[in-house]
Amino acid sequence: MTPYPPLMETLIDQFARLPGIGRKSAARLAFHVLSLPAPDVEAFADTLREARRAIGCCRVCQNLSDSEVCPICQSEHRTPSVICVVADPRDVAALERTREFKGRYHVLHGVISPMSRMGPDDIRIAELVGRVSAGGIEEVIMATNPDTEGEATALYIARLLRPFSVRVTRLAYGIPVGGHLEYADEVTLARALEGRRAL
Amino acid sequence: MTPYPPLMETLIDQFARLPGIGRKSAARLAFHVLSLPAPDVEAFADTLREARRAIGCCRVCQNLSDSEVCPICQSEHRTPSVICVVADPRDVAALERTREFKGRYHVLHGVISPMSRMGPDDIRIAELVGRVSAGGIEEVIMATNPDTEGEATALYIARLLRPFSVRVTRLAYGIPVGGHLEYADEVTLARALEGRRAL
Repeated sequence: MTPYPPLMETLIDQFARLPGIGRKSAARLAFHVLSLPAPDVEAFADTLREARRAIGCCRVCQNLSDSEVCPICQSEHRTPSVICVVADPRDVAALERTREFKGRYHVLHGVISPMSRMGPDDIRIAELVGRVSAGGIEEVIMATNPDTEGEATALYIARLLRPFSVRVTRLAYGIPVGGHLEYADEVTLARALEGRRAL
Repeated sequence: MTPYPPLMETLIDQFARLPGIGRKSAARLAFHVLSLPAPDVEAFADTLREARRAIGCCRVCQNLSDSEVCPICQSEHRTPSVICVVADPRDVAALERTREFKGRYHVLHGVISPMSRMGPDDIRIAELVGRVSAGGIEEVIMATNPDTEGEATALYIARLLRPFSVRVTRLAYGIPVGGHLEYADEVTLARALEGRRAL
């Protein structure tokens, strides 16, 4: 005899299907939901449904947006001639937190990764090439992650953009601010030396 | 400028309000929801709403149930004269997994805990006394957790049930099966000695 009502089992199953949530956490979450006031649960269910329905990708930069063109692409305060290319909408959030970047973005939604069977056509590279070929772009900053796949994706895109008169740059490598030389890995340290600048 | 659409922020907030889910996990979950097929998200939203609406407590044992009386209380294969008292519906699930207990349950939905301002009237003790006073009960097994609060709750209930001709027992303390004496704490080991049985 299952000790929980079938609907409870279903709810636990649904939570357990989410990434990083095991069976025990799923049960804890399901019990929590039952203990919440009904209107809170209604609101949660509505948000889930609404978010899935209303949020899509910006037609221009492919970042998450609830309008056809996202606020950053619509903003007149953002330089339209600089595009920062990232793998994921979360990377846009990280860069926006710096309040340093005044250009626009392009979200690839992934990186080229033969291991995960992701080729150039599986991410939004064609859309980026489209934007660059339409003209008016002076610089494309490759801000994919500093790992093998991010690196390969950046190089691949840089090569693709070579026919256009656009400067393609890459985020600087170096020692993280506030870090200790002692703990920096040798590759990072070598890159920091290589990229040294006059004081 | 917030980098995510407002609805996305709301969704992240909703996830972050769940127990054990931090801001970063909440964002990961929200992104996952957006990547799911729409019908899956609909199903999740429906389950949340439905579970909250349809699941209540069994009128008899107070365990979670989608019917007025739960399947265990309705079953003719369960001894009605033995009640196992637990703090939480999850404890019913744990005991059912043993397939050893053939009686019925009583779920307190908490323990007496002055620290958390939970008194005897905040948990389902009156309902248990009601069941026992109605007669036909021979044994009440106190299966609250072997910690201070579970212990105090068990003792409190045992005292309350003294006027009725019912045997009140407690789960055995001892070394866990498969455990090592070396790692058993001294209190557990003392209890195991105290409760030793003839071979």
